Amino acid sequence: MATKKQIILGIDPGTQVTGYGLILSDGISMELLAIGCIQTEKFDDHYDRLQCIFDRILEIILAYKPTILAIEAPFFGKNVQSMLKLGRAQGMAIAAALSQKIPIQEYSPKKVKQSITGNGNAAKEQVAAMLGHILKTDVLPKQLDATDGLAVAVCHHFSMRGMPKGGKKYSGWEAFAKENASRIVK
Amino acid sequence: MATKKQIILGIDPGTQVTGYGLILSDGISMELLAIGCIQTEKFDDHYDRLQCIFDRILEIILAYKPTILAIEAPFFGKNVQSMLKLGRAQGMAIAAALSQKIPIQEYSPKKVKQSITGNGNAAKEQVAAMLGHILKTDVLPKQLDATDGLAVAVCHHFSMRGMPKGGKKYSGWEAFAKENASRIVK
Repeated sequence: MATKKQIILGIDPGTQVTGYGLILSDGISMELLAIGCIQTEKFDDHYDRLQCIFDRILEIILAYKPTILAIEAPFFGKNVQSMLKLGRAQGMAIAAALSQKIPIQEYSPKKVKQSITGNGNAAKEQVAAMLGHILKTDVLPKQLDATDGLAVAVCHHFSMRGMPKGGKKYSGWEAFAKENASRIVK
Repeated sequence: MATKKQIILGIDPGTQVTGYGLILSDGISMELLAIGCIQTEKFDDHYDRLQCIFDRILEIILAYKPTILAIEAPFFGKNVQSMLKLGRAQGMAIAAALSQKIPIQEYSPKKVKQSITGNGNAAKEQVAAMLGHILKTDVLPKQLDATDGLAVAVCHHFSMRGMPKGGKKYSGWEAFAKENASRIVK
């Protein structure tokens, strides 16, 4: 049963690079709308970086009018200082969404990887390859930050419907790799 | 030498309570404009709390048009989870300021206490009493979260000019307490 169409904005925030992906989902199938990275490394100033994240996410929201923001949020990190900075970077995306009354859903990195590849500890490259397969595209950018953002949006789509799209339910990266040997970069 | 008048918004963000204070400073003297707390404990939902902080700080900014946001920001905390949440709460205030192109200055809790009382480890009650003295008012709210927010604004004022206002340079809480025994709540 197809549900109301949703535009899902997935983001993976970071103080240096924030990846994002937008998909149109009807609850059954999905279509890639946009994917990219917000590069903030060029700014030395911490606030310039935060402003850049806020401004760009707001631009994306105003341009695509997503129905939901799906955000990757780890529950632990290296140290308290890096978590404070990450919290601020997440805060920029959250504030941009809240300012436009867009609901937010969080997913842990493990949950995102699990829902895309079947393996909560999958490598970023595995997630990227699986996304290309799921979305039937060969044109995903090479930047793994971008595909990480897209992965969160696809994870939200799956969590809405309970299982991956299509007849084949891969049991994980290994099963997918076995059937798609030509897609694996050696 | 008096400098251009500044409206300083000081805030002490937290996920449960965010204190704020606004002062008008000419670089020499200052005047209390507003003080209060943003209570977010009434909301169960994490995002409702964050939205409340963003909306209220934005309202305050639009109403008072501060020239700077002075924000209290600890550099360490109990654990990474609480720091991530604190980072998000700070992020709401930072995003509200950045969205209105207002510059931001951070101060550590130690620096704020040091600049108000002369003692970086002063109790909140000592900071509150000293603020009443500095601002020549007896009407500061009892909520220590509110005076904590105001303290950040006053700290910024002092850091602009280098020393406390008035002829007397108290060397710290002890010297102030000795001369103001009647003001101490036993």
